[in-house]
Amino acid sequence: MLSVNAYAAPSASEDLVPTTIERRDVGPHDVLIEIKYAGICHSDIHTVRGDWGPQAYPLAPGHEIAGIVTEVGSEVTRHKVGDRVGVGCMVNSCRECANCLAGEEQYCLKGNVGTYGAVDRDGTITQGGYSTHVVVTEDFVVRIPEGIDLDVAAPLLCAGITTYSPLRHWGAGPGKKIAVVGLGGLGHMAVKLAHAMGAEVTVLSQSLKKMEDGLNLGANHYYATSDPATFEKLAGSLDLIINTVSASIDISSYLQLLKLDGALVNVGAPAEPLPVNAFALIGGRRSFAGSAIGGIRETQEMLDFCAEHGLGAEVEVIPAEKINDAYERVLASDVRYRFVIDTSTFA
Amino acid sequence: MLSVNAYAAPSASEDLVPTTIERRDVGPHDVLIEIKYAGICHSDIHTVRGDWGPQAYPLAPGHEIAGIVTEVGSEVTRHKVGDRVGVGCMVNSCRECANCLAGEEQYCLKGNVGTYGAVDRDGTITQGGYSTHVVVTEDFVVRIPEGIDLDVAAPLLCAGITTYSPLRHWGAGPGKKIAVVGLGGLGHMAVKLAHAMGAEVTVLSQSLKKMEDGLNLGANHYYATSDPATFEKLAGSLDLIINTVSASIDISSYLQLLKLDGALVNVGAPAEPLPVNAFALIGGRRSFAGSAIGGIRETQEMLDFCAEHGLGAEVEVIPAEKINDAYERVLASDVRYRFVIDTSTFA
Repeated sequence: MLSVNAYAAPSASEDLVPTTIERRDVGPHDVLIEIKYAGICHSDIHTVRGDWGPQAYPLAPGHEIAGIVTEVGSEVTRHKVGDRVGVGCMVNSCRECANCLAGEEQYCLKGNVGTYGAVDRDGTITQGGYSTHVVVTEDFVVRIPEGIDLDVAAPLLCAGITTYSPLRHWGAGPGKKIAVVGLGGLGHMAVKLAHAMGAEVTVLSQSLKKMEDGLNLGANHYYATSDPATFEKLAGSLDLIINTVSASIDISSYLQLLKLDGALVNVGAPAEPLPVNAFALIGGRRSFAGSAIGGIRETQEMLDFCAEHGLGAEVEVIPAEKINDAYERVLASDVRYRFVIDTSTFA
Repeated sequence: MLSVNAYAAPSASEDLVPTTIERRDVGPHDVLIEIKYAGICHSDIHTVRGDWGPQAYPLAPGHEIAGIVTEVGSEVTRHKVGDRVGVGCMVNSCRECANCLAGEEQYCLKGNVGTYGAVDRDGTITQGGYSTHVVVTEDFVVRIPEGIDLDVAAPLLCAGITTYSPLRHWGAGPGKKIAVVGLGGLGHMAVKLAHAMGAEVTVLSQSLKKMEDGLNLGANHYYATSDPATFEKLAGSLDLIINTVSASIDISSYLQLLKLDGALVNVGAPAEPLPVNAFALIGGRRSFAGSAIGGIRETQEMLDFCAEHGLGAEVEVIPAEKINDAYERVLASDVRYRFVIDTSTFA
């Protein structure tokens, strides 16, 4: 066992505090990663605060991990000491079901093992990336290409793949008109990625406050959804809408913006069911769909794509003692566009 | 103008009565069809009774038309006198928009012209197939192959194409597991067609009352949706669900029956929005979609497919004077599986 510095929530109602957590010994197929940066994802906050169900505490969140390999197990072939690597939202899966065999481990039929707060194969509870080190089985560790700095790479492990995967699955590319709903951590990556794929990109945001940012990130158009004229102007014009907003939006109004065979894809979900007018689907053979992160193979593909196109997240790097402040700022949407913790500041 | 016998509703609250309606003169691109059989679709009842909005009366419904060409306009090239032909849910469209040019006239961006109760290009209100004759522009008339009797062919023009099109679009075929929700007019055709395409077919019906029929029509499995065990047993097992039920069903429960990338496709729609749990979509990259009838080219393809596979609808042929009784029986789900009016009984 390895005892390492971390920031963890002692309970659902307390701030995160400096502590130590245990990492398992490096097994034959494991790699030990010295974490350099860990992104703060909105879901970290929901999870540690118990919004999505009870948790085991203390809990160190973090599933946007970038670091350096410092030790490898005897059987490891995919990574070596000194490699720049990343870990995303999952650290294992059954590896036997149809979905795992198809390389879609995120949809493991037995449930993938989440990077934190999940029961691992050995019965322990996984602990996330707000920590100096982590031990992960080599198959769930991806390579971060030289072209991407580790701080801007960290958020790609969740925000990047969560938007890259549906863009690829639903055919984003030249000639396609794609809208991104919400310009936050996920949304800003969706804009960058869709633009790099060659699509014509529209941001649909509540207001025009971030318009300049959106256009700089690669959007061709930027509309306020608070203005009803937006829905008239864009009716029937889009091939794909990536909805990054977890709050309830009026799905049926957005469906009307799609062309024949268009899809509206949610990458987040509100707790309440969303009312959908079936006529909005039938009237254009439209789809309302969902997508969860991406498989390991596709995560590597995404990182390679980002390196090739010089893409990383827009980040604000913070020291460990700012984590709780950052949480409040995330909840207030006061971040452009991702907080990333510099783990060298962990005492 | 041609005055022809018909059955029409004088108002939203009255039974259909024998009457005469006017048909336009046969123009250069028109064909005059002597209607032999007209199917009774549930939507006929909704429309004439004003359930879907106000109508112009008197209104003769009917959009499942099978008959014989008795006259053709001077420029007609696709049909000739004596041809066995059909007309479905639309009799025209703009022919210029992207969807029309793609052969998907049902999704005409200016709105297709419905076979009855719609404003035609000349400003008159279209009248449907509960009549002895109809005049239709040749491009919206399809050929009924010799292999299919006209009475069992009539319902293919709506119930057939409405289920054929989504089955084809979402890839029904060998190795695919497809469920059909509801075994009525549309559902029984969905079962026959999916079976003929080589798929493994499951019927999901409220009860097991029609189980023997379902298996005879080509279903491999038949389950009652009133039994919660059905949803446990079939969880994650289906590639495609065709929902033919217009009443509200619990979409999220049905979504859970789909495999990775599966789709639940509504071909009917309740007036009220359907609540959809986005987690059910995200958890398997599933889609909730809709589909409307099919284009003219695909309707012809469907009829050719039915002829090749010896398929027609299961019908109960009735004389004109039984139309109002048949409406009550349709509303009571007392039909196996489509009423078809023998128009030779129109006085």
